[in-house]
Amino acid sequence: MPVSDLTYHVDGDLVSADSATVSVRDRGFMYGDAVFETLRAYGGDVFRWDAHADRLAGSAAAISLDHGLSADGLKRRVDETLEANDLDDAYVKLSVTRGVQPGKLTPSPDVDPTVVVQVKPLPRGGVGSDPIWDGPAALQTVKTRRIPDAALPSRAKTHNYLNGILARLELRVSDADEAVMLDGEGHLAEGATSNLFFVDDEALRTPSLDGPVLPGITRAEVLDIAAEEGIPVREGAFTTDDLREATEAFVTNSTWEIRPVGTVDGIDVGGGPVTTLFRRLYDERVEAAHYGGDGSN
Amino acid sequence: MPVSDLTYHVDGDLVSADSATVSVRDRGFMYGDAVFETLRAYGGDVFRWDAHADRLAGSAAAISLDHGLSADGLKRRVDETLEANDLDDAYVKLSVTRGVQPGKLTPSPDVDPTVVVQVKPLPRGGVGSDPIWDGPAALQTVKTRRIPDAALPSRAKTHNYLNGILARLELRVSDADEAVMLDGEGHLAEGATSNLFFVDDEALRTPSLDGPVLPGITRAEVLDIAAEEGIPVREGAFTTDDLREATEAFVTNSTWEIRPVGTVDGIDVGGGPVTTLFRRLYDERVEAAHYGGDGSN
Repeated sequence: MPVSDLTYHVDGDLVSADSATVSVRDRGFMYGDAVFETLRAYGGDVFRWDAHADRLAGSAAAISLDHGLSADGLKRRVDETLEANDLDDAYVKLSVTRGVQPGKLTPSPDVDPTVVVQVKPLPRGGVGSDPIWDGPAALQTVKTRRIPDAALPSRAKTHNYLNGILARLELRVSDADEAVMLDGEGHLAEGATSNLFFVDDEALRTPSLDGPVLPGITRAEVLDIAAEEGIPVREGAFTTDDLREATEAFVTNSTWEIRPVGTVDGIDVGGGPVTTLFRRLYDERVEAAHYGGDGSN
Repeated sequence: MPVSDLTYHVDGDLVSADSATVSVRDRGFMYGDAVFETLRAYGGDVFRWDAHADRLAGSAAAISLDHGLSADGLKRRVDETLEANDLDDAYVKLSVTRGVQPGKLTPSPDVDPTVVVQVKPLPRGGVGSDPIWDGPAALQTVKTRRIPDAALPSRAKTHNYLNGILARLELRVSDADEAVMLDGEGHLAEGATSNLFFVDDEALRTPSLDGPVLPGITRAEVLDIAAEEGIPVREGAFTTDDLREATEAFVTNSTWEIRPVGTVDGIDVGGGPVTTLFRRLYDERVEAAHYGGDGSN
C-alpha cells in the first residue's frame, strides 16, 4: 500500500498521509520535544496497550510534558486511525509533542499538545506467522555511545533520536543491520531500536535498566515469559565479549518481536532452542490476546 | 508583529507563518534529524554569514547529512525571507532536515532535504543599541549534564535539543533564566543556549572546545576581539567555583550578543569593565558591517 493511500491522525483529525503535517513552530519539529510509542496492532487492536500507555506517560513525565491527555483518549485516536485504514495488522507510531509555544527554548507549562498517529500495514502475527524481518540480525558494536541518563533519561522515548541514527550510520561500512551501543563505561546498553538478550550456559541475560537502556515492552514480555517458564534470567552489566561468546542471542522490539541474532561484529552467534522457544511463546501470547486462539496449539 | 503576519520559507516556497508546515514523515519531525543555525540580521543582512554557513556545513557533516545545497543557495532563502517580511533587523532560524525517506531509522544517502527559514523582528543593533534581553543573566548550574561527544558531537547544532530543554526545566524552581551544564567530568560546558565567559585577575576564560561545547559564532567573535585588543584569553577546563568566584562573567549567543551575568547560583558575580568593553567593541563591529558606520564613534 503506497503511503498516499494511508490515513493518519493529526491534532484530532483524520487526514491523508500526504497532507499530514505539523507547524514548523511545533516544538516537536523545532527541538524534537516530543514523546512517542511504536506499537503493533494484531487483529485490529494494539498489543500491550496498557504497558505502552504507561511508558508514554513515563516518557512525558521525564521531560515534564504535562499534556493532559488520557490514555483512553490516545487509544481512541489509535483505534480511529486503524479503522479509517481498515487495518487489522499494522505498525503504529503514536507521538505527542509539546505543541506550538512562544518562541523560547524554555517550555511553558501551558501545553497544547500535538498528537500524531502514523500507521502502515504489516502481515498477520501470532502462531504460525512469518516474521517481518528478512533474516537474523547482524549486529555491529559501534563507536557511538548511548547518551547517559544524566544528560537525557533513557526511560524517555523521545523524538531526539540522533544518537541511534549516528549509531546506524556507522553500519554504512559494514554488512550489519543493527547497531549495538555501549554506555560510557563500555558496557552493553542496547541496539539503536532494540533491546539485547543473550544466552549462556547459566541463564538468559540482558543489560539491566540501571544502565542507559530503554525499558522495552517486548523486553518486559520476554522477562515475563521467562518467569512463567522458570527460565533463569540475569539482568546486569555485560561486555561485548559476553555477547560475542554467547551460545544464542536475540534482539527485541514491538515491530520485530523476537529476532534471532546471526552475527555480532562478524562473529557467528546464531539463534537456537531458547530463542525458538521464546518466539513460539510470544506468538502464542499474541494469538491468545488478538486472534481468539487459546495459544495452546 | 503577530506571528500570523510573518512569512516563512519552507521547502523553497514563501508561505505565511500560520501555514508553514512540514510532513509528519519528515525526519526533522520524526527524529529531530536536522541541523540549524540561529542568525541575527542587522540592516537587512545576517551577521557573519560565512561563519554560520561553515558551522552549518560542519553540523551536517557530523550527522552525515549530505544535503547538496550550496551556502549561496541557503543565503538566498534567508534573504528572500527577510525581504518578504520587509525586515532589516531580525532573528533568523535556518533549518535543514534530512527530509522524508522510507520508514526506516537508518538514513538513506539519497536525501531530499527540507529547508525552513523562520524570522521575527528584533530591534536595531550596533552602536548605541538597546540589548534584546531585559537584564543581566541569572545563571544556575543544573543537574542535567551536557551530552558527551561520544554520544552526539557537540559541534553539531541539531534539532535534538531536549538536553538543553531539560536543563532549562530545572530553572522552574529557581529565579534563574539560563542553565549552566557541566560535562561528565564535572567541568563547565555551556549554557542551554549560550557560551560562557568569565574574567579573573589574569585573563578572560572560557570552556575549551575540547569539552562538549558548541563552537559559538559569537564566542569566536569575542575571542577575535580579545586577540585584536591584546586581552589574554585562557581556554580550558573550569569548575563551577571558578565561575562563581569570577570578577565578571558574561554569556554569548547570536541573539543575545554579549549578555552580562548578574548571578551564578544566586551568588552575585556581575558584569564590569571587561564585559562593557567587549559589548562596545562587538556593537562597533556590527555597526561597521551592517549600518555603514565606521565603528569609531
